[in-house]
Amino acid sequence: MKIVVIGSGTAGSNFALFMRKLDRKAEITVIGKESTMQYSPCALPHVISGTIEKPEDVIVFPNEFYERQRIKLMLNTEVKAIDRERKVVVTDKGEVPYDRLVLAVGSKAFVPPIKGVGNEGVFTLKSLDDVRKIKSYIAERKPKKAVVIGAGLIGLEGAEAFAKLGMEVLVVELMDRLMPTMLDKDTAKLVQKEMEEHNIAFRFGVGVSEIIGSPVSAVKIGEEEVKADLVLVATGVRANVGLAKEAGLDVHWGIVVNEHLQTSDPEIYAIGDCAEVVDGVTGERTLSQLGTSAVRMAKVAAEHIAGKDVAFRPVFNTAITELFGLEIGTFGVTEERAKKEGIDIAIGKFKGSTKPEYYPGGKPIYVKVIFRKDDRKLIGGQIVGGERVWGRVMTLSALAQKDATAEDIVYLETAYAPPISPTIDPVTVAAEMALRRFR
Amino acid sequence: MKIVVIGSGTAGSNFALFMRKLDRKAEITVIGKESTMQYSPCALPHVISGTIEKPEDVIVFPNEFYERQRIKLMLNTEVKAIDRERKVVVTDKGEVPYDRLVLAVGSKAFVPPIKGVGNEGVFTLKSLDDVRKIKSYIAERKPKKAVVIGAGLIGLEGAEAFAKLGMEVLVVELMDRLMPTMLDKDTAKLVQKEMEEHNIAFRFGVGVSEIIGSPVSAVKIGEEEVKADLVLVATGVRANVGLAKEAGLDVHWGIVVNEHLQTSDPEIYAIGDCAEVVDGVTGERTLSQLGTSAVRMAKVAAEHIAGKDVAFRPVFNTAITELFGLEIGTFGVTEERAKKEGIDIAIGKFKGSTKPEYYPGGKPIYVKVIFRKDDRKLIGGQIVGGERVWGRVMTLSALAQKDATAEDIVYLETAYAPPISPTIDPVTVAAEMALRRFR
Repeated sequence: MKIVVIGSGTAGSNFALFMRKLDRKAEITVIGKESTMQYSPCALPHVISGTIEKPEDVIVFPNEFYERQRIKLMLNTEVKAIDRERKVVVTDKGEVPYDRLVLAVGSKAFVPPIKGVGNEGVFTLKSLDDVRKIKSYIAERKPKKAVVIGAGLIGLEGAEAFAKLGMEVLVVELMDRLMPTMLDKDTAKLVQKEMEEHNIAFRFGVGVSEIIGSPVSAVKIGEEEVKADLVLVATGVRANVGLAKEAGLDVHWGIVVNEHLQTSDPEIYAIGDCAEVVDGVTGERTLSQLGTSAVRMAKVAAEHIAGKDVAFRPVFNTAITELFGLEIGTFGVTEERAKKEGIDIAIGKFKGSTKPEYYPGGKPIYVKVIFRKDDRKLIGGQIVGGERVWGRVMTLSALAQKDATAEDIVYLETAYAPPISPTIDPVTVAAEMALRRFR
Repeated sequence: MKIVVIGSGTAGSNFALFMRKLDRKAEITVIGKESTMQYSPCALPHVISGTIEKPEDVIVFPNEFYERQRIKLMLNTEVKAIDRERKVVVTDKGEVPYDRLVLAVGSKAFVPPIKGVGNEGVFTLKSLDDVRKIKSYIAERKPKKAVVIGAGLIGLEGAEAFAKLGMEVLVVELMDRLMPTMLDKDTAKLVQKEMEEHNIAFRFGVGVSEIIGSPVSAVKIGEEEVKADLVLVATGVRANVGLAKEAGLDVHWGIVVNEHLQTSDPEIYAIGDCAEVVDGVTGERTLSQLGTSAVRMAKVAAEHIAGKDVAFRPVFNTAITELFGLEIGTFGVTEERAKKEGIDIAIGKFKGSTKPEYYPGGKPIYVKVIFRKDDRKLIGGQIVGGERVWGRVMTLSALAQKDATAEDIVYLETAYAPPISPTIDPVTVAAEMALRRFR
């Protein structure tokens, strides 16, 4: 069987490896635009800050690793079209026939049509190439003032990197808070406060209307001109759907797939950032542009092609980040989103400490849990704290994935030791607070 | 309603507080042997090491805190008997009538009948009083060599404390490994190695037959005499069942209770270390002598007395500790125990890193998961690693509490960020390893 993958990122690379494990004989070809296989886009801000030394360090395996597993690589290759009738992928290096085709074409940074957005010193932060450009620009120009457009994850992680390099940073966000799709106002405020203490300023509810100078010297926010030696555009990503659309596949925000990740053509799969999957809370179509989701999709698609009856489960978009030592974790829907969707919810909030009072070194932690009133199920959570946020978000998300109710959290058996956590865990207290709102 | 609690520890103190929240009017009396209310027995080793400065620091709330909530305290009081006919508790300070009685009488350190076990310099580590005695002995005698009898949690945490104070420590354990009820040989070895690197030696499969000298100067292991200036006896605890037994209540290893935590007399409840509850894996009777279980039992008993139809859920004995920075977490059954119980199991093991390879500072982590073959359910896990063990044990235990299968872990949506965790989490890889054994 000829299995062809378009895309050499997290989804495509992991798919090829899973597929090889499941089928020793299949002819597997990966077609990629870049010169290397999978690297972690989430690691890129840490390359800018210098925590990870060289851009190349974030490449997970060298090309030879794949080739040794008889995965054929066609890198630096542009795909022109998919000819579904003849079952071939048309590239700038010739045609590649397939029995099964996997679209792992990812997403691209969305760049709003701001005047001057193409000027020197204006960057996106999506690829290794972006990082190389930013690093060499910083080395040459030694910028002192960075403006970040967009306060999503990449924007904030970029802002952190710039601040760690000694720059003064301003983050400009159209919405009324940072991480607006992942956090509500209460949790966003805590993150903002921490970042403000590290030389990062915020402007909310406004946009950048113009970028002035090439190399950049200022940006315009409304009528005001603000100095800027470097601008990062981090206004989200868009699924790459062009190729699929031209091939006549069903496309919405992303490439539409069924539970086996097959597109409207059952011989073609879509996985990763480009695929539109099912939201675990609303049951509606959604994108899940996370490395973890890409890997799970890669696994499910490979298993299904290998003949296993397996389904990709609805997503909760569980995410974690760390900014200046503060951990921020989320999953499911925010309060704002639940209200927009018309879901009747019960919310529990609790501000506690990560350790028992008598043990030194405890840090503040804020837990917010969101339950759907009609079936009492956990449908979202946001945690911000100085440590051990990740474990709590993992635990709550895992429980949500298993249809846990408010009672399941209130009576949850937790693990306690004085240097690690309190006897009564903040997550159970937050759930208890929510439980009262059911009555 | 007159509600009387015997026992001022974690179970009794929390019960009184929960009860007061649920019933503003009830007359609540706590009878306790010691002079204070709840303190954390798990914190005591950290008082010995000096991490927690004063013994008194581990007392959760001062007595006045309870009294302000109109909880009557009868401390320094010995209970002589329970007269169930007249519904009174007989104490050395008079009789106390009850409508509902809650036995939160805890457990006591088991001291084996070793010759010389009563000598000066031989201690248990169960109460604040024990800690005061150990601290003053150490201050006076400046012991250089400690022998710990028993390699359970308290024994190892005691050993760590002594080592941190500069003592050479030998731990003697009858079984073939440390933490024998919580860890199998493979995981126990990892902990042993870490402790050996911190000046702690182990002798397994042997017992101490005699303690020589008062103050102690040596112990006898078989025929061999080993120098010892301080001996800690940490050979487990036993539920305090005497009072219940004399009152004619059903008693087994602990005081037998139903799912509402009522003893064989429905007006008398038992909670905490003294109560015998249901094992989440085997469905059999078990003890759950953990602070977290005590708190949950306190909550359920209070709610049931307040008229709520609530049940105490079967326990998985989820536990965590930290020794020299190494985190050790467990829940459910060990491989050894499963085999003893005749459960057909599939095991998955994985040794990985806590961070992606390209991010600096990752630490080794070893994950072992145990599934029951017939229903594919997660029934146990052991994790040992340099960081983020707690979050993984919490997550896996929570999933086990929600009847998760091997597939639920393999396809679990996890949370990833380079400074925090790898894209493919070690727990899902371990589950994948187990899944292969089902085929």
